[in-house]
Amino acid sequence: MFPDRTFFNRLAEAAKAETLPRFRSGIDVTNKLASGFDPVTEGDRAAEAAIRALIETHFPEHGILGEEFGNVGLEREHVWVIDPIDGTRAFISGVPVWGTLIGLYRNGQAVMGMIEQPFTGERYFADESGSYYTGPEGERRLKVRDCAGLSDAILFTTSPHLFAGTEMERYREIEGQVRLFRYGTDCYAYALLAAGHIDLVIENSLKPYDVGGIIPVIEKAGGIITTWDGGRPENGGSIIAAGSRAVYDAAVAILRR
Amino acid sequence: MFPDRTFFNRLAEAAKAETLPRFRSGIDVTNKLASGFDPVTEGDRAAEAAIRALIETHFPEHGILGEEFGNVGLEREHVWVIDPIDGTRAFISGVPVWGTLIGLYRNGQAVMGMIEQPFTGERYFADESGSYYTGPEGERRLKVRDCAGLSDAILFTTSPHLFAGTEMERYREIEGQVRLFRYGTDCYAYALLAAGHIDLVIENSLKPYDVGGIIPVIEKAGGIITTWDGGRPENGGSIIAAGSRAVYDAAVAILRR
Repeated sequence: MFPDRTFFNRLAEAAKAETLPRFRSGIDVTNKLASGFDPVTEGDRAAEAAIRALIETHFPEHGILGEEFGNVGLEREHVWVIDPIDGTRAFISGVPVWGTLIGLYRNGQAVMGMIEQPFTGERYFADESGSYYTGPEGERRLKVRDCAGLSDAILFTTSPHLFAGTEMERYREIEGQVRLFRYGTDCYAYALLAAGHIDLVIENSLKPYDVGGIIPVIEKAGGIITTWDGGRPENGGSIIAAGSRAVYDAAVAILRR
Repeated sequence: MFPDRTFFNRLAEAAKAETLPRFRSGIDVTNKLASGFDPVTEGDRAAEAAIRALIETHFPEHGILGEEFGNVGLEREHVWVIDPIDGTRAFISGVPVWGTLIGLYRNGQAVMGMIEQPFTGERYFADESGSYYTGPEGERRLKVRDCAGLSDAILFTTSPHLFAGTEMERYREIEGQVRLFRYGTDCYAYALLAAGHIDLVIENSLKPYDVGGIIPVIEKAGGIITTWDGGRPENGGSIIAAGSRAVYDAAVAILRR
């Protein structure tokens, strides 16, 4: 048996039962790192535990890479890549642009994925047949939009403070050429890109679990997601996602300069 | 007869009927200004027209100050202050942090107000009896949270690019002192402040219709909203909103330096 959409929906519901009741409820925030601000909530840990329990029950032969707990069997053919709450800062601030990210890798390549936003009731899911949306707008197939170039593009990044030095210069050059840019969207930016609302996302310092659930949602909607140097994105790092080849090419030409 | 919550709900529903179907639907974007990017959608105009029609029918003796159409009777005792879609850039990007803002001024002071976000189904409303939330979390009274000082505070602003020169230096000084800051929330930031999820919002260049509907929602939730120099906020300009006096005092001490 191979995991299907129904199983992903079970995972999303299990995560939602742990995250949503804690959203906007005066949650516990502890610092994962002694320096800097990296909050992790009870919801983060409880959601990952719930997801892992289902995977371990139904697919004990699969590996698991999660944000909150130890990794298991990363050398196995199938590995689940889990970020129970991507965008913990959005979560603790009450902004519904965080999400639960669940990806399934086969031999290192992301083949199924989900972006779940339980407050808005939106779920973005992809398997090998395509990329799909369910939410307040109903159900539909996801498709990126065409965009002729940077001057027509909408660009999102979580924060300009991600970048420094040469990276900042290149990022600012792209920002200066696009039609519109916005900050503060975490994984939600990638969902909007897959749905054809925006055209470009540029980030860096991503972990595998920050992108694992996102990759199939974008690729199966017709979009492009790679590292800045054009490599596969499964291991995270500096990531670019674009809805059209023209926008992708124009942006990477600047990023790789 | 004086407008009540039921009438505000009618205005919100009339606006929603024009905005929500156009959200994420491939809307027409035109530039209001020859230079720069100031999109206005059909939804913006249609929502304001729908709101104005109801006001003109039920309260013909009231004045109206709106974003999209001409002003009427600004010298009258009661004046409605309307921003049909605050956060048009969020709207065209698919991010549900835009809102419909409706305020009612009596002799120049905001006495009733509403922040409506139809995609998430959230409505923040205030009259002289208090400030109220209805939405996915149910119904409850809004109350700001206590916060001891900047080092505990969550700060939001729509974009750091709002600020330049000395204003930027002062803004950055505050940003450097807070626990967490985020960008890209438009009017939604003020709703989160009234609901006790965040502590501080700092913006500038606001028009009266950018704040008119917000002021009572914050004040009746126990928050503070003024211009940076401590004046009443009804005319817009440089605006600070805080959930606690301690955070407000610490921030304005820097802004006024």
